[in-house]
Amino acid sequence: MMDQARSNVIDPHLKRRSKRPHIVVVGAGFGGLAAAKKLANIEADVTVVDRLNHHTFQPLLYQVATAGLAVDDVCYATRGIFKKAKNIRVRHGAVSEIDLENKRLFIGDENDVLEYDKLILACGAVTSDFGIEGVADFGFGLKTAAEAINLRNHILTNFERVARYNSLNADQSPELTTVVVAGGGPTGVELAGGVIELFDRVLSKDFPDIDMSKARVVLVEAGPRLLSAMNEKLSDKARKRLEKMGVEIMVNSAVELVDENSVKLQDGTVLHSNTLVWAAGVKANPLGQALGVETVAGGRIVVDSDLSLPGNPDVFVIGDVAATKWLDDKLVPQMATGAIQMGEYVGDTLRRSVAPDTSEQTDIGPFEYKDKGAMATVGRNTGLVELPNGLRVSGWAGWVAWLGLHVLMLMGFRNRANVMVNWAWNYLTYDRGSRIIVE
Amino acid sequence: MMDQARSNVIDPHLKRRSKRPHIVVVGAGFGGLAAAKKLANIEADVTVVDRLNHHTFQPLLYQVATAGLAVDDVCYATRGIFKKAKNIRVRHGAVSEIDLENKRLFIGDENDVLEYDKLILACGAVTSDFGIEGVADFGFGLKTAAEAINLRNHILTNFERVARYNSLNADQSPELTTVVVAGGGPTGVELAGGVIELFDRVLSKDFPDIDMSKARVVLVEAGPRLLSAMNEKLSDKARKRLEKMGVEIMVNSAVELVDENSVKLQDGTVLHSNTLVWAAGVKANPLGQALGVETVAGGRIVVDSDLSLPGNPDVFVIGDVAATKWLDDKLVPQMATGAIQMGEYVGDTLRRSVAPDTSEQTDIGPFEYKDKGAMATVGRNTGLVELPNGLRVSGWAGWVAWLGLHVLMLMGFRNRANVMVNWAWNYLTYDRGSRIIVE
Repeated sequence: MMDQARSNVIDPHLKRRSKRPHIVVVGAGFGGLAAAKKLANIEADVTVVDRLNHHTFQPLLYQVATAGLAVDDVCYATRGIFKKAKNIRVRHGAVSEIDLENKRLFIGDENDVLEYDKLILACGAVTSDFGIEGVADFGFGLKTAAEAINLRNHILTNFERVARYNSLNADQSPELTTVVVAGGGPTGVELAGGVIELFDRVLSKDFPDIDMSKARVVLVEAGPRLLSAMNEKLSDKARKRLEKMGVEIMVNSAVELVDENSVKLQDGTVLHSNTLVWAAGVKANPLGQALGVETVAGGRIVVDSDLSLPGNPDVFVIGDVAATKWLDDKLVPQMATGAIQMGEYVGDTLRRSVAPDTSEQTDIGPFEYKDKGAMATVGRNTGLVELPNGLRVSGWAGWVAWLGLHVLMLMGFRNRANVMVNWAWNYLTYDRGSRIIVE
Repeated sequence: MMDQARSNVIDPHLKRRSKRPHIVVVGAGFGGLAAAKKLANIEADVTVVDRLNHHTFQPLLYQVATAGLAVDDVCYATRGIFKKAKNIRVRHGAVSEIDLENKRLFIGDENDVLEYDKLILACGAVTSDFGIEGVADFGFGLKTAAEAINLRNHILTNFERVARYNSLNADQSPELTTVVVAGGGPTGVELAGGVIELFDRVLSKDFPDIDMSKARVVLVEAGPRLLSAMNEKLSDKARKRLEKMGVEIMVNSAVELVDENSVKLQDGTVLHSNTLVWAAGVKANPLGQALGVETVAGGRIVVDSDLSLPGNPDVFVIGDVAATKWLDDKLVPQMATGAIQMGEYVGDTLRRSVAPDTSEQTDIGPFEYKDKGAMATVGRNTGLVELPNGLRVSGWAGWVAWLGLHVLMLMGFRNRANVMVNWAWNYLTYDRGSRIIVE
């Protein structure tokens, strides 16, 4: 079937057999977009493939889940990004198989084949449940717009159910008003802060008949501290701030078992909750492991110093799916900044390789990751920023820095303007305008 | 079962048996909200029941469907509307049965009962397919946020499918790029204009490999002209403008049969399309007919001149579900302005009836509908406005009037600001920022 399919396909850009090389970018996340942007209007055909029709600004999905932003604020149609790049096409579909030997890949379950001369694999990471029972069935992820909407619908519907039970004189079921966040990294910290603020500032007013003192947000972290990538002082600040806001923090605690209405921890504690948000870990997109090449823990693909696949100089692997050396004992962290740098590096490499001007064809050397530091926000008015030189900013200044950087990183003036309107509204009124249940 | 349930319920507002009357408002549309707002902070308990957790600004749903606005821009959480009214509670759930004799109603399929002293029935209208085969199964409605998102996802996914077929050297299937809009009223006219603009200005750039000359928007109207509620000159302007934009208009044409990939008209014409949007008619919410009271065509409930149910002075019926006399031979049209006026009238009536200040207890006389005219927009820069005195405004001035009025009618500063940002963006760039497929 697949060999037949192959014969159907002549050229990615509609039947014109081009002599130009064809570069395929798999994934329209931070890495894939950074690479593709470098390839705009060069002497090559470029195809960007993604299973979604839009780029998702994942760092702000937690605000969609907590009703502060609309999905439309944090997503951007991929086709719109490249409409001025005549050599770049976008293909909407999930890559099902990559055939390195024949330099082609298959999209979806139809006979849809793309042949490539160069491949940039930027398919990112997916949620990893580490095989813990029940997480896949009952946990909520926070990697896509649909997942953020699901979580928002679920939390709001829970409160509506409690309101109904109250009207029936029934007991308020604790599982409906308890949100458990697994994972004390930036996503978990930001989400826990966002949920407790939603509870305290918004739902407490929306549901005056619900006893909010029984509503709980529990942040469970397997390691000894929150934000383990940051300095201990910032971890401590995050913890104190979250606790002051009312979040219960359990460090050195790991989830053992999840079912519909409870989360059981390894120490035997049972949290009565039907809302487990899984921010405890990611693994590289399984597409990488299916290649049969060398991977490290978490399924990340080992790459050469130019980010190409060892022994396969036409395939580059970037972003969360790549295991890229940084310091002797470390890999580049799976964050947007790393993915963007890798994307730009590979984009530059390939742009130079097809440049008619030979002056561009000089070797750009191995990829070098520039640490940009780390940041997280803990509810309104508190941000935590750690710069690579060790400088730390926290409190209000850190929060403003966080806001500014995220607005700048957002794609498109419209998204930026909408996010600023919504943030100003949320900040001034303590309101969350997007608390709608879309069925 | 239901009698048992009744005994569970003492009071709508949590166990405190109140001596104050209990007013139940069914529906949080334009009518229900207008009524409930008049009842804020009076000496009565008020419960607003709606099957959704938000008010939907239906006049702008077509812009959600055509990717110009976010759902969050046109929806507003019902609980947020009444957070300052201590006597008003909101209940999220679908009313399943109204028991006029025992003055109570049932919500959902649980034993959830609300007893009322006064009832305001404002449950609106639903799409009516007039029994035409296939409309319910294959047609798209445009009455809820979910329906608007469904339609948007469907249109965008169709184009992605065509792009994929093109890449497979397969023929472009005409049903994927043809949108049929049934119904030439304001909704149909506005949607048809919105879709053709989406095709011409946005999708033509997003999909440079698709032959857009084969993409069609067909507006089918059973009567002899578009916008039949308006003057013929405005109908004519709408028609000419839409035709200039590329919409095919078929008047005196009715849909006979719909299946997955085609729409068959009564004259035998077959339109190859998998996208029929049904804007051809509504009927009153069936909840009204289930009461067993007198109804007229379209299931609207006959009311007295004070909008109460004949013989039942404790039940008021307002908005699209009411058959309210206007002129001798006419009923108040099923539009937002009528619903709002009726809601305010009944709200005033009930507010006065419980006012401790007897000066407020004067009779306010029968309901009198004030015609506010009609308006519609036909793509960018063209609006059609007809005032009750016969004055007509069209073109750019009409369009600006349409924009201004819709922004003013939107609920909440945040929604207004976001809509203005998005409209400015759409207008200046010809872009549609919300063209994302959320799965």
